[in-house]
Amino acid sequence: MTRKGIIGIDIGGTNIKAALVRGGRLSRRVRTTTHAHVGVQRSVNQIKSTITPLHSEANAIGIGIAGIIDSKKGVVKYSPNLKGWENVPLARILRREFGLPVYILNDVNAICLGEWKHGAGRGHNNLFLFTLGTGVGGAAICEGKLLFGAHGFAGEFGHTTIHAKGPLCICGQHGHIERYAGAKFIVARARKKMAKQKSSLAKYDLLTPKIIAREAARGDRVAREVFSEVGYYLGLGIANLLALFDPEIVIISGGIARAGRVLFAPIRRTVQQVVMGSKYRDFKIVPALLDDDAGIVGAALFAKLTRVNRPV
Amino acid sequence: MTRKGIIGIDIGGTNIKAALVRGGRLSRRVRTTTHAHVGVQRSVNQIKSTITPLHSEANAIGIGIAGIIDSKKGVVKYSPNLKGWENVPLARILRREFGLPVYILNDVNAICLGEWKHGAGRGHNNLFLFTLGTGVGGAAICEGKLLFGAHGFAGEFGHTTIHAKGPLCICGQHGHIERYAGAKFIVARARKKMAKQKSSLAKYDLLTPKIIAREAARGDRVAREVFSEVGYYLGLGIANLLALFDPEIVIISGGIARAGRVLFAPIRRTVQQVVMGSKYRDFKIVPALLDDDAGIVGAALFAKLTRVNRPV
Repeated sequence: MTRKGIIGIDIGGTNIKAALVRGGRLSRRVRTTTHAHVGVQRSVNQIKSTITPLHSEANAIGIGIAGIIDSKKGVVKYSPNLKGWENVPLARILRREFGLPVYILNDVNAICLGEWKHGAGRGHNNLFLFTLGTGVGGAAICEGKLLFGAHGFAGEFGHTTIHAKGPLCICGQHGHIERYAGAKFIVARARKKMAKQKSSLAKYDLLTPKIIAREAARGDRVAREVFSEVGYYLGLGIANLLALFDPEIVIISGGIARAGRVLFAPIRRTVQQVVMGSKYRDFKIVPALLDDDAGIVGAALFAKLTRVNRPV
Repeated sequence: MTRKGIIGIDIGGTNIKAALVRGGRLSRRVRTTTHAHVGVQRSVNQIKSTITPLHSEANAIGIGIAGIIDSKKGVVKYSPNLKGWENVPLARILRREFGLPVYILNDVNAICLGEWKHGAGRGHNNLFLFTLGTGVGGAAICEGKLLFGAHGFAGEFGHTTIHAKGPLCICGQHGHIERYAGAKFIVARARKKMAKQKSSLAKYDLLTPKIIAREAARGDRVAREVFSEVGYYLGLGIANLLALFDPEIVIISGGIARAGRVLFAPIRRTVQQVVMGSKYRDFKIVPALLDDDAGIVGAALFAKLTRVNRPV
């Protein structure tokens, strides 16, 4: 008989990804399209179907899920991706079904734990991770501990203000990080410039940050300007993170983080220029290493760590 | 024989304050004017003179000091208030002199510890404290632990950007919190308004935030506008703190925090308007309780807590 593992699950608005995790290694991967608009009962059933083929080989379940999660009670208070999910006692429901201890946490917290223990953050006691995608999420490890905060909200980098008189964010406030670095705002910035300048971006019907990054790397001036500006605003935000958390390392996760030098060069330049006391600091700003696996690994790790402290 | 205490010392640019601390209570208070410009040797001697009458009743010494402090090594890397202080191994010097274990930390970290255990922050595991004075300092308790960060820099709220295109801060960057809420900038804001409007502030030769707060409380329109604007910018900054740290409580310390309603009303109004997910949050923004004693109590507490973990 092989040693039992922990089921790690990453529930996103698009996909549910799961695997059996042993010592940071994944096996028995499962991936299904999230049925996000079918109501609580049917999407819970979908999660159960994901677990069923794995549960006999596991001794715990860890789940990362976007939204406001009460990890202590195992309750999804609100999830923006899943229709109707308010105050769903997900941990209890699954524990009854499978007879295994179940632990849930915010998806970005899970990614942060995964990158911390098995990815770009290994060996660091103070780190901040944020994700660049449709939205901008974040999470912090402070003095060797994942920061939940009073309501499990800590790390909300995307909705911090860096420009009091800046443009309106989707949340209704001005000059938030997400308003500059969220995917659709990166595309909108490119379109605005394309109206005034010639650009190789014009040949694409559907623009994405990935395409803009590729054209920037090839030297397109509009695309380079877009990333230079996005990098500047992200740099201001990261300087705030360095001032407040003083991490050794800032990790950028999510699709846009794969843009490479066109993104990281303007970020690093800005941070060096604006951060307080740079001569006394030693820090790195790096891309994540685990890609899509980080959330699965981190969710499993959370189950493992929590189980040791609070056996169920 | 009475039980021994811990000497708590708060070294500021203006005063050195010390006392014997037992269970959060102060006795044998000492207060002297800081000789800030006399060089390292003579200001170290001044600190020794402060300790001498107390040390036979103490079993440890804790010191809060403005600047960049390496608490692990007991070294003052840099202090803006004390001329020539760079890489001074203060803990070792004093330990040799008095034969007692000595622990040093940043002054705002000390204030934060003091308010956490004996003041406005009692019973909270996640809190942020900032000081309003000449400058704006800050410190955080995260999951029941004082946050030092990688270099002991964490909590630098004063030099976070809230307005990318805002006015220049003394540090050379734009739109920092300190540029709006530092004492001299509050006074400058009043003077600018006084040039255009009648105000009861005109009768004062020397304006201070305290005077402006008093006249605001009495209904002076210029003074009220000043605090309404300062409160707005502080509110934006506090909303960032809530987004990133998710504390249950934000404590404002320092002279200007005693301004009362004229300051706290616009802060609370702004935060309620701008903070993400306010319906899921429960937090307080309150003035500090311990006034000048917080730094002494907190320094002593730091010595006590550190001593338990690392006996010298």
